[in-house]
Amino acid sequence: MKNFKHVGYLGPEGTFSHEAVLKVVDEDSSIIAFDDITSIFESLDSGCIDEAVVPIENSTQGSVLVTLDALSLYDVNIIAEFELAIKHNLLAQKDVTLDDISVICSHPQAIAQCRNYINSISKTVHAMSSTANAARYVCELSTAAVIGSSVLKQKYGLEFLERNIQDYDNNTTRFVILSKEKQKNSTANDKTSIILSLIGDKPGGLYEILEVFAQEAINLTKIESRPSKKGMGNYIFFIDMEGHITQKNIVNALTTIRSKVDKLKILGSYKIITVGGN
Amino acid sequence: MKNFKHVGYLGPEGTFSHEAVLKVVDEDSSIIAFDDITSIFESLDSGCIDEAVVPIENSTQGSVLVTLDALSLYDVNIIAEFELAIKHNLLAQKDVTLDDISVICSHPQAIAQCRNYINSISKTVHAMSSTANAARYVCELSTAAVIGSSVLKQKYGLEFLERNIQDYDNNTTRFVILSKEKQKNSTANDKTSIILSLIGDKPGGLYEILEVFAQEAINLTKIESRPSKKGMGNYIFFIDMEGHITQKNIVNALTTIRSKVDKLKILGSYKIITVGGN
Repeated sequence: MKNFKHVGYLGPEGTFSHEAVLKVVDEDSSIIAFDDITSIFESLDSGCIDEAVVPIENSTQGSVLVTLDALSLYDVNIIAEFELAIKHNLLAQKDVTLDDISVICSHPQAIAQCRNYINSISKTVHAMSSTANAARYVCELSTAAVIGSSVLKQKYGLEFLERNIQDYDNNTTRFVILSKEKQKNSTANDKTSIILSLIGDKPGGLYEILEVFAQEAINLTKIESRPSKKGMGNYIFFIDMEGHITQKNIVNALTTIRSKVDKLKILGSYKIITVGGN
Repeated sequence: MKNFKHVGYLGPEGTFSHEAVLKVVDEDSSIIAFDDITSIFESLDSGCIDEAVVPIENSTQGSVLVTLDALSLYDVNIIAEFELAIKHNLLAQKDVTLDDISVICSHPQAIAQCRNYINSISKTVHAMSSTANAARYVCELSTAAVIGSSVLKQKYGLEFLERNIQDYDNNTTRFVILSKEKQKNSTANDKTSIILSLIGDKPGGLYEILEVFAQEAINLTKIESRPSKKGMGNYIFFIDMEGHITQKNIVNALTTIRSKVDKLKILGSYKIITVGGN
């Protein structure tokens, strides 16, 4: 595979998706900010970009439903996954102290995730359309501070006033790296993701599928249902398991399951990457 | 139970939640619009309202996650469920024709659900904060039309220019009626909903639970996972089944399951109501 790659991510700059893509991308690749997740899948599917980094699940909010729905629609493969701790910081211009600040600004989601901290410091809060816009505002106003990812420090030349101000410490987001190519090589630490729809659309039929995994001693790490959009009560299931599709027990399980379901789509076998702290 | 009840719903007036509550409420009850779903649960739990009607699932969008999360947190019971077809209409002032209209306005979600129709008539589109606001605007401007529920007709004295203009015809929303009281009487057409968390938080452990339902010949109609908010990979499961908790096989299954799980919460046994078309 060529080293220089165009890698898509969910913009704008300064978001946790931006921080995520910077953690895993090669230095000689170029990263491209997209306005929405579906456009990233479209561009990857049509070959306009080589890879993409998209959020798939947050430990507090749950699955990123747009990503799940796009995985079922587009012909792309998961080639890696990693988790990023969502750590918010308060940043302002250089040599500014918390006492100088009268306004805190950020995206409403970041504000919501730091509610306890904000209440403790009694400042005016301005919700803005993105953390990037808030950071630009702070660059021009020494009495304002922005809540956001540590990416904002380098990107906008700001300084930390306070670090790790989020209300919940176990807030992490799982990201996947996507490609048109499959990840064919196994490692010691792989996962496999599939989507399936049951014959007759009886959710209880999931029992027969889970039985196959149990018989092959495959550990499942996630089971999630999404509407098939064919009508109420009609679901597709997203299942994540430990192991690579080159393993015998996974081959056996998926072969058996294929004969028991309406549709089976393999989203990929991929390595679990560990990324450094922020 | 007293006949006069205060029934909460997700406002503002003119939404499909408003249409839904009007379908099931007694004439002598009073309905109260709330700004958000969590506030409805709070008011019901604290006894400020007697019942509530909340959306729980849409056939296209999937579960209403705020409702699922609130069901796990608050001490309330599901006492009935019903489905409402999401049918959009174009309404304007009396004696106005489509040719007189230059602007179509509505909430962005309604606009998104009628995209094909809107493209076919080539009018300017204005997104507004609610269909109620859009309807009030149309009341004052004869060259504007609003997209929304048939409730708008009576509520704002408007007339239909076109009916059923939604892109997808199988778009239905499932609503539940909530109460502090349990629905103790069974009917011929009941469902039971539970929430459970697994010991050790291995999603594969769901297999053992589904096995119990299969052994008791209980039909499951929905299985959904949500994050427990304790950390990545840690889920609670929402399971809906056919039948009432007074049935022997459901009692047996839930007794066995209680010994196999970390936590089990019964959200209610309730009748499936059929409501008329709109």
